[in-house]
Amino acid sequence: MKRHLISAADLTRDDALLILDTADELAKISERSIKKLPTLRGRTVVNLFFEDSTRTRISFEAAAKRLSADVINFSAKGSSVSKGESLKDTALTLEAMGADAVVIRHGASGAPYRLAGWVRGSVVNAGDGTHEHPTQALLDAFTMRRRLGSLDGRKVTIVGDVLHSRVARSNVLLLATLGAEVTLVAPPTLFPVNVDSWPCEVSYDLDAMLPKSDVVMMLRVQRERMNAAFFPTEREYSRRYGLDRERVARMPDHAIVMHPGPMNRGMEIAAEVADSPRSTIVEQVANGVTARMAVLYLLLGGADLGGEI
Amino acid sequence: MKRHLISAADLTRDDALLILDTADELAKISERSIKKLPTLRGRTVVNLFFEDSTRTRISFEAAAKRLSADVINFSAKGSSVSKGESLKDTALTLEAMGADAVVIRHGASGAPYRLAGWVRGSVVNAGDGTHEHPTQALLDAFTMRRRLGSLDGRKVTIVGDVLHSRVARSNVLLLATLGAEVTLVAPPTLFPVNVDSWPCEVSYDLDAMLPKSDVVMMLRVQRERMNAAFFPTEREYSRRYGLDRERVARMPDHAIVMHPGPMNRGMEIAAEVADSPRSTIVEQVANGVTARMAVLYLLLGGADLGGEI
Amino acid sequence: MKRHLISAADLTRDDALLILDTADELAKISERSIKKLPTLRGRTVVNLFFEDSTRTRISFEAAAKRLSADVINFSAKGSSVSKGESLKDTALTLEAMGADAVVIRHGASGAPYRLAGWVRGSVVNAGDGTHEHPTQALLDAFTMRRRLGSLDGRKVTIVGDVLHSRVARSNVLLLATLGAEVTLVAPPTLFPVNVDSWPCEVSYDLDAMLPKSDVVMMLRVQRERMNAAFFPTEREYSRRYGLDRERVARMPDHAIVMHPGPMNRGMEIAAEVADSPRSTIVEQVANGVTARMAVLYLLLGGADLGGEI
Repeated sequence: MKRHLISAADLTRDDALLILDTADELAKISERSIKKLPTLRGRTVVNLFFEDSTRTRISFEAAAKRLSADVINFSAKGSSVSKGESLKDTALTLEAMGADAVVIRHGASGAPYRLAGWVRGSVVNAGDGTHEHPTQALLDAFTMRRRLGSLDGRKVTIVGDVLHSRVARSNVLLLATLGAEVTLVAPPTLFPVNVDSWPCEVSYDLDAMLPKSDVVMMLRVQRERMNAAFFPTEREYSRRYGLDRERVARMPDHAIVMHPGPMNRGMEIAAEVADSPRSTIVEQVANGVTARMAVLYLLLGGADLGGEI
Repeated sequence: MKRHLISAADLTRDDALLILDTADELAKISERSIKKLPTLRGRTVVNLFFEDSTRTRISFEAAAKRLSADVINFSAKGSSVSKGESLKDTALTLEAMGADAVVIRHGASGAPYRLAGWVRGSVVNAGDGTHEHPTQALLDAFTMRRRLGSLDGRKVTIVGDVLHSRVARSNVLLLATLGAEVTLVAPPTLFPVNVDSWPCEVSYDLDAMLPKSDVVMMLRVQRERMNAAFFPTEREYSRRYGLDRERVARMPDHAIVMHPGPMNRGMEIAAEVADSPRSTIVEQVANGVTARMAVLYLLLGGADLGGEI
Repeated sequence: MKRHLISAADLTRDDALLILDTADELAKISERSIKKLPTLRGRTVVNLFFEDSTRTRISFEAAAKRLSADVINFSAKGSSVSKGESLKDTALTLEAMGADAVVIRHGASGAPYRLAGWVRGSVVNAGDGTHEHPTQALLDAFTMRRRLGSLDGRKVTIVGDVLHSRVARSNVLLLATLGAEVTLVAPPTLFPVNVDSWPCEVSYDLDAMLPKSDVVMMLRVQRERMNAAFFPTEREYSRRYGLDRERVARMPDHAIVMHPGPMNRGMEIAAEVADSPRSTIVEQVANGVTARMAVLYLLLGGADLGGEI
């Protein structure tokens, strides 16, 4: 495995399976009353967040703490960054302070790549612009595998604003690596121009895809984008691409419903669907901590796991 | 004891005494140079604060850390909550991330009750609207008991803006449970309409109450409410309800002065009174950490305390 | 050593050497993969920051955590302080909550002195107004000593906005104590009026100083001050006081370049100079954690260090 996790494309099939297998082992910890391993004691994980994302920050923080790492939260607001310090100097500063891993969230696509060029520690991309969010793809794959078994040949339908979604891109890349067949469904205006080069199919017709899907993953609608010209009205969007009870009824019995959260209940997903037994939404959150534990564990070269669990 | 602590009314007399006795034991830890017990190692306490309250947040954080729990601070500002995520989804997210206890501060009365309906972990109310603040009442009772012994039959006078005070309400409920006799003193406009149903007396005359009080507890004046129609002028309020040296002189020799902080020195309490030996204000802060340790310890079912201290 | 560290002038030569020697020992920890000592387990360090300074806050946080202390971050924004609580009441509150050390950053010169008068724990000044920043001076001295050996008789040139620099003042005081000879270089308008009483020389001519300097320390230009009447234009400042490759070439071969960060690359220091092998800028950050570990270790009376490392 590489030293950093910046794109889902960085992961070979063996890398991805190693992370998922490690997460399986670590999940046993999360079921104990003492959810803690001494593995990363004395290591420091810095959460470097240039965008607010409490969910993601807390998930990484919980993951690192369960491995006994020290966690330092660095919100770029009100920091030297706002005094004009460059990303490079921020990176060198964090490294000099002893950061063994930097988890970065940044509004600019590619910022984690830049960061990785400057530091010796590990860089984990926790979301960069509209580019990637690889640990989200890992937790999603982990969730699918726990519910459905091996992903080889599984049919995954991802629905929504693909154009602006780092979640969609990372999922497409990782799921292709793991042998699943992905179809993206969105209004024509919400596909990126180069989607033809992605390892997946595209469709404008959600209803046609439902009966052949093992997984239907709904993307979050960013309400602030709703007024833009390329977006249908809220009502139109919900009618054509929202997942309600009628649509779920057309899915195979074993198929599951996913959403990266936070949800707009009643918009891209009906409340009753979100709360149904097919929904993995709460599991995804729990699996997020576990998958991130696996990533930090493997990147920071923890001791042999077998002996510890 | 119940799984949650939401209202002082949830506590039976036995529950309350158990918490106070446990706090007595835990206070011994706070007197050591190494103020730490391994009891809650591997447990996670989330501070979910929808309102700023650095004092209360730090008090819970110190309490949880002294018991070796991991603490995650979640300020609702700039989080998914501000993107429209519901309290329920936030609750399910925190639980899925492994929160064993959620300490919640919320501007809406009743929010902690809602939260408790959705999670399996423990919910601790750290202040909800004008409703309750039960750990404040516990630390106050703990402080009184350390200074005065048993609370049975003790006369406690609580003075100030009862209408908007969750501290007053929680204190009245807990003190009644513990056998104390409470009198509320305030201008007529600053009582809630249903105060007749509370287990206490009411009075408009502070000076008449002073000679018969074992405890005089001053409530904080919220300066931002001072301009409202129901409030006397600052000068008038201070003259009639402020605790100055002359008033303290009319109290029995053993009687104590309390204030939940932060104080408006010179407004509801004179600086020389706040700093006098009768004042328990600094003790209340220290006891706050201890009382919250006891609550977290008991709710999270720590191991037998006797063996650890 | 005193109980607090508020001014570099508080340190005798023996105190300063003890801190630097302790830092030398602790630096060995920072080179290990498990960068952690159990020394301050059960002790609580509060970072009380009235001004944003993520770099300094994180440096102290990392230092305290490497010594196994619990760290509580208290940003004064949105706290009781903004509700009008006095610094004294904040101090008493933090002490009552069990703070063994309070690291304070405050916009008002002298605030840490006030704080030290109210608490029994240790106070560490992390920057007060334009007054002092003693741990910065310690990390700078530690950096010089690691590069150049003993500071006795070393010639240190400090360049920039001395008038507003707590870094300059603390460095002058500490370096004089350690036997170095300091010269301050700045435009005439950027010296404090009483600089004649400081234990150093002054000069307006950077170029004249370069050949005789063992150390050239560039101060940060606060861009927000650039428009004020006493400041040259940006271009003029950079031309006369900026450190570029040509100027560095006039320094002795062994001489080093320092900067407390964050830098304005291209303004007071050229990017190629900042990144050159003579530059200690990244080392200063790493040494900052180490020096602060030494300060916390000594103030909080850790156990004998010899046995632990």
